[in-house]
Amino acid sequence: MEEVKVDLGVRSYQIKVGEDLLKDIGTYLTELEIGSKVLIITNDLVDSLYGQEVKDSLKEVGFTVEVAKIGDGEKYKSLETAQQLYDQAVVAGLDRSSSILALGGGVVGDIAGFIAATYMRGVNFIQVPTTLLAQVDSSVGGKVAVNHAAGKNLIGDFYQPQLVVADINVLSTLEEKELKAGLAEVIKYGVIWDEEFFTFLEDNYKEILTLEPQQVQHLIKVSCQIKAAVVAQDETERGLRAILNYGHTLGHALEAVTDYQYYRHGEGVAIGMLGAAKLAHQIGWLDKADVIRQQRLIENFGLPTSFSQWSVDEICQALTKDKKVEDGVIRFILAKEIGEVEIIADLEENLIKEVTQELKVGDEK
Amino acid sequence: MEEVKVDLGVRSYQIKVGEDLLKDIGTYLTELEIGSKVLIITNDLVDSLYGQEVKDSLKEVGFTVEVAKIGDGEKYKSLETAQQLYDQAVVAGLDRSSSILALGGGVVGDIAGFIAATYMRGVNFIQVPTTLLAQVDSSVGGKVAVNHAAGKNLIGDFYQPQLVVADINVLSTLEEKELKAGLAEVIKYGVIWDEEFFTFLEDNYKEILTLEPQQVQHLIKVSCQIKAAVVAQDETERGLRAILNYGHTLGHALEAVTDYQYYRHGEGVAIGMLGAAKLAHQIGWLDKADVIRQQRLIENFGLPTSFSQWSVDEICQALTKDKKVEDGVIRFILAKEIGEVEIIADLEENLIKEVTQELKVGDEK
Repeated sequence: MEEVKVDLGVRSYQIKVGEDLLKDIGTYLTELEIGSKVLIITNDLVDSLYGQEVKDSLKEVGFTVEVAKIGDGEKYKSLETAQQLYDQAVVAGLDRSSSILALGGGVVGDIAGFIAATYMRGVNFIQVPTTLLAQVDSSVGGKVAVNHAAGKNLIGDFYQPQLVVADINVLSTLEEKELKAGLAEVIKYGVIWDEEFFTFLEDNYKEILTLEPQQVQHLIKVSCQIKAAVVAQDETERGLRAILNYGHTLGHALEAVTDYQYYRHGEGVAIGMLGAAKLAHQIGWLDKADVIRQQRLIENFGLPTSFSQWSVDEICQALTKDKKVEDGVIRFILAKEIGEVEIIADLEENLIKEVTQELKVGDEK
Repeated sequence: MEEVKVDLGVRSYQIKVGEDLLKDIGTYLTELEIGSKVLIITNDLVDSLYGQEVKDSLKEVGFTVEVAKIGDGEKYKSLETAQQLYDQAVVAGLDRSSSILALGGGVVGDIAGFIAATYMRGVNFIQVPTTLLAQVDSSVGGKVAVNHAAGKNLIGDFYQPQLVVADINVLSTLEEKELKAGLAEVIKYGVIWDEEFFTFLEDNYKEILTLEPQQVQHLIKVSCQIKAAVVAQDETERGLRAILNYGHTLGHALEAVTDYQYYRHGEGVAIGMLGAAKLAHQIGWLDKADVIRQQRLIENFGLPTSFSQWSVDEICQALTKDKKVEDGVIRFILAKEIGEVEIIADLEENLIKEVTQELKVGDEK
């Protein structure tokens, strides 16, 4: 097992990464200063796979455990579901010293975190992510949310967990598409922060796709280290943290025009990253060779680098409605080189349109 | 005008207290670093009295202003109302740089603050409290919330405003009962923190009840200073901040058994403070004379010191369901003397019952 510390003063916490950790969750929780009640928020599928092991582990060391299950999918990350979860927290008798444990992927983690942040103005929160995307990204850093008809994650908070437990064994039950979607965020960390890590991904993509424990553990550890380093410098996204949105500006727009039905988040980000690479090249920042390296790595991980059936105009319109837009200004995160990015706010609309169009027809290789 | 600083590092802010401040709100907001859009959250009555003046002041300096109105009363401080307000924030086109301005009493401030805290994970928040209770208490310190069927303020957050503007002129349109309810919290500040302030209240209660500007401005300023001092030391109620709940343990229980229909919050707190004074005397902390001083001041402000028709057993049961109960332990804030309190967690159930019973039959004087 490896441990990554997220350094946020009084809100600091550990991420534990390793094999076969679920059976020891109870022990880990006894090391925190928390009350005796735990409400696990999960979904049917994850509960059937890992619920019993987690419950047993908690009960064994004396916790009182209740389980609340939500539907599977983004559409259940809603205020309506939140209302039901508040009700269940009341029924479970949670008080301020109690804990909410998210056992699942990003949807479960985001809404469970929102409940933990707002129930009684905040109870203890434990993240046990069961998808790669959640392990390397959404479970770390404290962004919690529910969706609103007008936008994904439109209602949310910054609320740090007390502990994150990333058990790499659970990835074996993950659908291949889900695994690949998580890898988009992993590529992102290489581009924004760490060229050496990017090279590690290039050299080890086959071992990663077949879930070799050594490579997967390293990948999760380094991803969490990078995210932790960024979040420690800017917890509430006033500046630096925005670089974690590399590939997300166009990615979110693609998700929005397809009503969050067609692309997995990571797939949108994959296309968005190539768009960002092309934009960076167009303004003279990124070498053509580094655009191609990104494209190749995205492709090697089995992720899309182009789209066909959607309207370029609609995508560009959706860009202006993103919640990262402030007083009408669209921000892009663009790379100077692999391992270093900057935030840029004054890109020409025509250029954005041109590059989006390029992504639509595909790129000659 | 006087200014009180709430010292919370990067989240520090000013409270402006004085006469005729509403007309300058626009100017005050230009001194903050905020975007051009402001959504005012208010209710019909307050809007009809002060809405136009605030809107004009904001528009004059170039802000785009929209108004969202909620119903009057605790029952509108709900997730349902929150959902409507999120919708209106979307329609108003608020982005992360935009501001939500609460124009009203505690209900408006609490729910507007909850929206500000959670819309896009937090937008700018301005408090313009129009009741005494909101000016001396709820608008300062960052507690925001909505109610749940199982408890008042059960869903909430800690979220600091960027500015609080307390215009004492607005108190002239306040119902007498509302004014008195606010004075309960003012007495509280004297008991928990400042014997000199308590004496000021004893000496000036008549001038305060007739709203003499000099006395009222001093009262609001000192109340805010005390609250600011406490909150600065313990923003998220891990320890010291709990002393602000003086009188609230029994007070909340009284509100709960009467379904929040019978007592104004301050009336519950008034009875609860006398209960706390009696408890403190019973365990040998507070002199009988200081119990009587509290009782007399509460009475001089026209607030209740006893109840008649409610069940002592039900009240004592309600105590165990309060959200301040942790792992089954009920905490009381009790005074050692006027100006100094401590948190106590191991009071005997019988003693609590006995004192509650005393409040029911009334006290021989």
